[in-house]
Amino acid sequence: MAEAAKGPLDGLRVIDLTRVLSGPFCTMILGDLGADVIKIEPPKGDPVRAQGTMTEGHSGYFAGFNRNKRSMVLDLYSDEGRDVLRRLLADADVLVENFRPGTLQKMGLGEDDLARLNPRLIVASINGYGSTGPYVDRPAFDFIAQAMSGFMGVNGDPDGPPMRAAAPVSDLVAGIYAALGVLAAVVGRERTGKGQTVEVAMVNGLISLLAYLASEYFATNRVPERTGNDHPLVYPYGLFTCSDGQIAVANSHDQILRRFLDRLDLGWVMTDPRYDSNSKRMAAREELREMINARMAGHSRDHWLAILNAAGVPCGIVQDLHQVFADPQVKAQQMVIDVPFQDGPTVKVPGFPIKLGATPCHVHRPVPRLGGGTRTILAELGLSEEEIAGLLQRQVAGD
Amino acid sequence: MAEAAKGPLDGLRVIDLTRVLSGPFCTMILGDLGADVIKIEPPKGDPVRAQGTMTEGHSGYFAGFNRNKRSMVLDLYSDEGRDVLRRLLADADVLVENFRPGTLQKMGLGEDDLARLNPRLIVASINGYGSTGPYVDRPAFDFIAQAMSGFMGVNGDPDGPPMRAAAPVSDLVAGIYAALGVLAAVVGRERTGKGQTVEVAMVNGLISLLAYLASEYFATNRVPERTGNDHPLVYPYGLFTCSDGQIAVANSHDQILRRFLDRLDLGWVMTDPRYDSNSKRMAAREELREMINARMAGHSRDHWLAILNAAGVPCGIVQDLHQVFADPQVKAQQMVIDVPFQDGPTVKVPGFPIKLGATPCHVHRPVPRLGGGTRTILAELGLSEEEIAGLLQRQVAGD
Repeated sequence: MAEAAKGPLDGLRVIDLTRVLSGPFCTMILGDLGADVIKIEPPKGDPVRAQGTMTEGHSGYFAGFNRNKRSMVLDLYSDEGRDVLRRLLADADVLVENFRPGTLQKMGLGEDDLARLNPRLIVASINGYGSTGPYVDRPAFDFIAQAMSGFMGVNGDPDGPPMRAAAPVSDLVAGIYAALGVLAAVVGRERTGKGQTVEVAMVNGLISLLAYLASEYFATNRVPERTGNDHPLVYPYGLFTCSDGQIAVANSHDQILRRFLDRLDLGWVMTDPRYDSNSKRMAAREELREMINARMAGHSRDHWLAILNAAGVPCGIVQDLHQVFADPQVKAQQMVIDVPFQDGPTVKVPGFPIKLGATPCHVHRPVPRLGGGTRTILAELGLSEEEIAGLLQRQVAGD
Repeated sequence: MAEAAKGPLDGLRVIDLTRVLSGPFCTMILGDLGADVIKIEPPKGDPVRAQGTMTEGHSGYFAGFNRNKRSMVLDLYSDEGRDVLRRLLADADVLVENFRPGTLQKMGLGEDDLARLNPRLIVASINGYGSTGPYVDRPAFDFIAQAMSGFMGVNGDPDGPPMRAAAPVSDLVAGIYAALGVLAAVVGRERTGKGQTVEVAMVNGLISLLAYLASEYFATNRVPERTGNDHPLVYPYGLFTCSDGQIAVANSHDQILRRFLDRLDLGWVMTDPRYDSNSKRMAAREELREMINARMAGHSRDHWLAILNAAGVPCGIVQDLHQVFADPQVKAQQMVIDVPFQDGPTVKVPGFPIKLGATPCHVHRPVPRLGGGTRTILAELGLSEEEIAGLLQRQVAGD
């Protein structure tokens, strides 16, 4: 792996006890930004290593969440294993975990223990509902967090069921927030010299995304209705049908709408007494939809996209993943990158969403083989070759 | 406003040129974490001030994105206004903008100008498609970013249309990523002494959330089908119908599924040769759905939620916003908070998703009146009362 310009988090040591999705996404982001992430795995490894379609025996799903990390196998059920963990934590900046609340405490690593061990340590926890409150013991899962947070209830057609997002948004948003909270704590530590706890719950993360849906509810005490792909307050807006398929158009205010209608030779709509206000247009939704679709049907999607984009009307197509990853803009933004597995094939994963000018994110470490960093990390801790061999032989550590 | 324990970003000065959603969300998060955010508004103000249902003449929608900021009115079309901005930037840590790419340059604030003015300045930009590539001039909007990123194409029922998320996820995810990128750059600056640019595009943010949908596409070259509320790979999983409505159940692996079926007295399913593997259960989806719904129908949602949660099966209801904000867990997590407007009413907004142990997020500044901080900020810049009066009189600044 080429050593490029160091990332902004170069020198930040992150001990990662997380598995599956929310936590690994958090620590991958920190790794992408240059942190030294040590992923501690049980002897069987993060279960995601065995999930998804394999490429030469390696999981692309795992690659998408675990580039830029080192892997160390440690049996945390053994006293000796927890002892090694404590030695790692004594010298680390950040611990990230996504166990159920209380698990860390049962391992003898409660808040007070950790503060005694390393007062500078920042301890980040990601969970479903938070570590206080009546649901603290409930198991969580992305789909359930989408349902309980209100995020899912507002999605879908008015006459259809509430609809989840297929992407695991509650896991990933919680992971991003946790990375952000960690860095805020790192910045704060410059002044105080002390670490602190950071906690993000999946349900809370999605509640924070409800935006005007929440504020309208608070202002009116009315539950918003599902409006499918139409905008709840503005029309025309949504999907329209061209000769070869649909395009999405967001006429977010009158000025843009005027340009849109002009391009369709429907400029008269704006001054026609039947349609000359947004509320009239909302009421005449189906009529206008037909009128617009009739015009759109005369040309292809590419025709309308070129004309409308040039006119400053936000529009696009609903791309499937084949189209997304072939899109020249997505390529220009390097939103597909190659990452190699340590001792394995190179696979494609989504690229870095944060673009830094001076120290851009890059792949500075491969996707680690299970335990691929164990020996090096133990040696960095100051253990002798004999001690390391002993830990491996007693299966406290694995490589 | 009570001065509680300072947030971790106390002392960080953020100049905020953003409007509407993505940018204001980014800077609000920085403000929630203790930064001093100066929101520069044109004389007419951020358009969101006039949007959504008003409470005593104030927009709750605006409150949800602009607590913990000060507002300053500055006419950036005037030389004098841009001059004041330059003086602010000379002493600031962060500039955040969400104009279309190139706008800052036209204002004489290109990357080089800013680096000369203040080499420590971190300049964060949020836009639709990124500042390079063929779509750089296209207008963007949340709905369009959902469509173009692939996020929307994977949502929805197999026989229905692709379905957007109602919450403006592309705006908000970009805003969170931008805040994260800013803090990474702040941490990096400790070592280098230099700021850098940070850019996040809405489309890129959503691509980064495609998770296993993307990795499966890369591994198989097959576009994932829409599966509605069912899991694409696992069954039983999804919504099931109790006597008084549906519950969501996430049987993410066999161990959990066994507990689920046991509680329904359907434990035999796991060993019946018709259903004894996940692929057989996927094939017998509709048969199993009926069987499970028949059991569920015998009891209420509360009955099943209590039993299944106790058994460690992730489950919940699809809450509407009324249920969400009345939920005892959501209340215990303080995910609804009161924020006052400067010289206005107090309204409810979603709470803080990042919970810090030592320096928790809190409302340290009200939602600012348009220009409510102008005089103070100009005085802090060292301008005399006469100079301030002159700027106000010439309508370069407003209060």
